[in-house]
Amino acid sequence: MTRLDMFIDRMVSQRACLDFAIAETALMGGPVFELGLGNGRTYDHLRDRVTGRPIYVFERAVASNPASTPPEDMTILGDVRETLPQAVGRFGDTASLIHADLGGHNLAKNDEFARLVSPLIAPLLAPGGLMVSSDRMYFDALEQVPLPTGAVEGRCFIYRRPTA
Amino acid sequence: MTRLDMFIDRMVSQRACLDFAIAETALMGGPVFELGLGNGRTYDHLRDRVTGRPIYVFERAVASNPASTPPEDMTILGDVRETLPQAVGRFGDTASLIHADLGGHNLAKNDEFARLVSPLIAPLLAPGGLMVSSDRMYFDALEQVPLPTGAVEGRCFIYRRPTA
Ligand SMILES: C[S@@+](CC[C@H](N)C(=O)[O-])C[C@H]1O[C@@H](n2cnc3c(N)ncnc32)[C@H](O)[C@@H]1O
Ligand code: NI
Ligand code: NI
Repeated sequence: MTRLDMFIDRMVSQRACLDFAIAETALMGGPVFELGLGNGRTYDHLRDRVTGRPIYVFERAVASNPASTPPEDMTILGDVRETLPQAVGRFGDTASLIHADLGGHNLAKNDEFARLVSPLIAPLLAPGGLMVSSDRMYFDALEQVPLPTGAVEGRCFIYRRPTA
Repeated sequence: MTRLDMFIDRMVSQRACLDFAIAETALMGGPVFELGLGNGRTYDHLRDRVTGRPIYVFERAVASNPASTPPEDMTILGDVRETLPQAVGRFGDTASLIHADLGGHNLAKNDEFARLVSPLIAPLLAPGGLMVSSDRMYFDALEQVPLPTGAVEGRCFIYRRPTA
């Protein structure tokens, strides 16, 4: 497996998981949260496929392709370690879908960060809402969901907040 | 088609074209040239799949993932507009495979650059050698090769120097 192979698997899994999660939550009205804008490719995908739900983007420093830069009033600027707790006050547990792709090249650091942000993400998700992540997350109250066809085990993770 | 869809198509096409070109030129002994290191994903792929041929990387400023950074003596540092003409003196027309992924986000600029570097690349290719590019190239003496299965039309281009 080359780094190109792994990267393709990750991108393909991300798309499969997002498409699945968008469809599964299509009847929910709550906002969609994109944690980490990066180049803006998954944001562009969300924007294209999600209908009737606002999409908020959490990002420390916007550096996306101009073709997929979110409007200013939909961008929540700052470190997610601060902006996620603030978002609980603003949105409560209403998010229908949260996508996180916050990791970098250091797998150990990514895991550490996933442990740190998991408890900051969970309180934002509505009952029945889904969380899609490129890293394994550490949730108490959310349950892991089997991956859809086309996604590669270990390259993407899906979690659901039970409805009751 | 979202930017994520296009990106996946490009990566998948790149891999399909590289695998095809590596196999087609497997019996040739001449060096492989990677033009544009970037993150180093396609370099990592070449390094893994090419056997018995040296791989030289042409790059302006090395900023790859440490896991796929080429050795210093295999890196030809500088702007390809200067290093390619110099390489003709050093290598002659011996390259068995040249891969170019030099483009950025601006399609018009990429096309302009492809026109500029095409005549600098052609003199390096051995008879029967293949050139794989993310951009359409402008060659007089090379012929375009149909894409292999798995590659998406327009996302990748393959050219061959005829043997006679
Ligand atoms: C899209 S990236 C290559 C990505 C790579 N194929 C990968 O899989 O990670 C393009 C690279 O080409 C390099 N580049 C662009 N123009 C160049 C030039 N005129 N001379 C040398 N390098 C150049 C850039 O610095 C950048 O690293
Ligand atoms: Ni992503
Ligand atoms: Ni590339």
